[in-house]
Amino acid sequence: MSKTIAINAGSSSLKWKLFTMPEESVLASGIVERIGLNDSIFTIKYNDGEKFEQVVDIADHEVAVEMLLEQLKELNILSDFNEITGVGHRVVAGGEIFKDSALVTDEVINQIEELSEFAPLHNPANATGIKAFRKILPDITSVAVFDTSFHQTMPKVNYLYSIPMEYYEKHNARKYGAHGTSHKYVAERAAELLGKPIEDTKIITCHLGNGASITAVDGGKSVDTSMGFTPLAGVTMGTRSGDIDPSLLPFLMEKEGIESINDMIYILNNESGLKGLSGISSDMRDLEDAEATNERAELALRIFEDRVRKYIGSYAATMNGVDAIVFTAGIGENGSDTRKNVIDGLTFLGAEIDDEKNNVRGKEREISSDSSKVKVFLIPTDEEVMIARDVEKFRNS
Amino acid sequence: MSKTIAINAGSSSLKWKLFTMPEESVLASGIVERIGLNDSIFTIKYNDGEKFEQVVDIADHEVAVEMLLEQLKELNILSDFNEITGVGHRVVAGGEIFKDSALVTDEVINQIEELSEFAPLHNPANATGIKAFRKILPDITSVAVFDTSFHQTMPKVNYLYSIPMEYYEKHNARKYGAHGTSHKYVAERAAELLGKPIEDTKIITCHLGNGASITAVDGGKSVDTSMGFTPLAGVTMGTRSGDIDPSLLPFLMEKEGIESINDMIYILNNESGLKGLSGISSDMRDLEDAEATNERAELALRIFEDRVRKYIGSYAATMNGVDAIVFTAGIGENGSDTRKNVIDGLTFLGAEIDDEKNNVRGKEREISSDSSKVKVFLIPTDEEVMIARDVEKFRNS
Repeated sequence: MSKTIAINAGSSSLKWKLFTMPEESVLASGIVERIGLNDSIFTIKYNDGEKFEQVVDIADHEVAVEMLLEQLKELNILSDFNEITGVGHRVVAGGEIFKDSALVTDEVINQIEELSEFAPLHNPANATGIKAFRKILPDITSVAVFDTSFHQTMPKVNYLYSIPMEYYEKHNARKYGAHGTSHKYVAERAAELLGKPIEDTKIITCHLGNGASITAVDGGKSVDTSMGFTPLAGVTMGTRSGDIDPSLLPFLMEKEGIESINDMIYILNNESGLKGLSGISSDMRDLEDAEATNERAELALRIFEDRVRKYIGSYAATMNGVDAIVFTAGIGENGSDTRKNVIDGLTFLGAEIDDEKNNVRGKEREISSDSSKVKVFLIPTDEEVMIARDVEKFRNS
Repeated sequence: MSKTIAINAGSSSLKWKLFTMPEESVLASGIVERIGLNDSIFTIKYNDGEKFEQVVDIADHEVAVEMLLEQLKELNILSDFNEITGVGHRVVAGGEIFKDSALVTDEVINQIEELSEFAPLHNPANATGIKAFRKILPDITSVAVFDTSFHQTMPKVNYLYSIPMEYYEKHNARKYGAHGTSHKYVAERAAELLGKPIEDTKIITCHLGNGASITAVDGGKSVDTSMGFTPLAGVTMGTRSGDIDPSLLPFLMEKEGIESINDMIYILNNESGLKGLSGISSDMRDLEDAEATNERAELALRIFEDRVRKYIGSYAATMNGVDAIVFTAGIGENGSDTRKNVIDGLTFLGAEIDDEKNNVRGKEREISSDSSKVKVFLIPTDEEVMIARDVEKFRNS
């Protein structure tokens, strides 16, 4: 039995989950927040409901990892550091280099850092997390798992933009997508629920959280996804615009006196989406609370549902059919109204929701009616277990 | 019997078609090119095959209109100017002001000129054409017909972008669409061919020319369209990118040393699309000729077909179904391979092409198989007759 830890490192945070493998049972999970700031918050959940929390200054990610391991011993979750045999790190941008997860080497770390231009906020932080673990546990199997690699199976027709080809050839300007680990996990679960080899399935996966993306998974492979060169593209999100006419950029910059294109992109990433439309919140729950009395909140919800529905329609066209539609992530798992409203507009596909089955939060189940030709599933995502599985693959290879 | 002339004025051109109404028969048509430049070219087609051509310096649109009327008399197409009882002008941008065609007044001309910020190349030219006719034939019924007004029935959910709402409220930043007159014409014809009241139909119209747009026409009303705030958005076009991740703009500007956002938008409008992808031509016919031996030409064609197919899928979702798909404009009317490749990927909708019926150029006909649940039509567009009809409506009201 081995213990494997899955890591999601942000610039000032470190989320983690500790598994026993290959059983995939969760021993503990937690988060360290405000790393490098004052009053860092250190939380561990374990033993099915127990919680350890501490507020303390944590200077950097290395200190966070050391504290974490010490505390896991203290709480008797580990008896020795050496019980941890593997660590898997989520990395946001893998570019065209990483078509699959990779065993961490110095070169891999360099490449992850070089890919920072595709994810300036995330990749440097991901690399910091990798290096912290490498320093403290240098001998364990360390694996980088990329958010983009599941989408590396997209055909050229789908990943190329209709811009001068030299921009792709010289600068790798193309669609990469995101949330790949999540889309892969729920697509594989959906195939199991369909009782079919995944090779014989056409599945549309809707990862709907604060960031949201839709993926066409044909025969188990991502063939198209709604996020683009960056996570700005695609459907309406919490604070991101999703798809817009690029001509709006110079028009709005002139009208609003926005001097730099980067400031404009910042607004599209941070002040748009549900937040910009509603004027009250980027959080679906706030909008649902306000919907009855606030016209803009209601409109924001309908726009979100419309964009999701349109991508489902367009990906049914991409695959020339669809066997199952999957909802996952925060909104997908908890938003029964969203799920219902999206699917109610897709009866032409033969999709039909069962209101009673759909009255659920965060539990894996079929939510379509018995007569629905397209199966609709709610499948809670589990990126961490996918990361742990990839670590196991490398440990056993 | 009255004679009505339909006008499409560009900055240095004037296209026209002369009808007898209400018969809608074409007496003559023509174009004046290189107005205001040297060696203007003046062409008239009449009497089913006869052609008059002259190369002469034409100083401005007023001179062009005068010459045109004189020559129509000379060729015995008119016996007197007064036979022309109405003129209809195509205008590209009508904003939110013009939800329908409008009788030309001084105020209307002012409004058209004020809307130039939405169509800086087109609206000023359209206004010039209107003023030239108004000066020379001040007493006839003069009507402005807007490319955008058919799309003014779109619901807010579809025309709003997911950007801060104040950008819409303050600056009218929203989706307007284009090719409205064409989409309306072919949708109405399709309903007739379906033998149903248009109110009971769901039609997806594909206007595929050098500029291309797809429209969802539900019950005779445009409910969504692929062009956006400007004609840059939507599917891949001859030289336009269609939809892209807006984050590509700052990335490419930095990589390529493009200093101004307007230069970047120029590239997306003029150096992208089929031209940028193939590297050889923006013209579908050139790409089809090269397809067998040129990988990039082949790729450009497949990308174009893919984007059209995806919009059809997404608009089937918008309307929750589709009764008919219509192809029109240059590529739509002449590109039998494009039509076939698009529809062959949509059997999940119940659409099926009939290869023999599809082997046709520019003739109105059904091209789907007898068993196809979704009817597919080739319908040559006729924006000019729609303009002439709108003039008649005002003459008779």
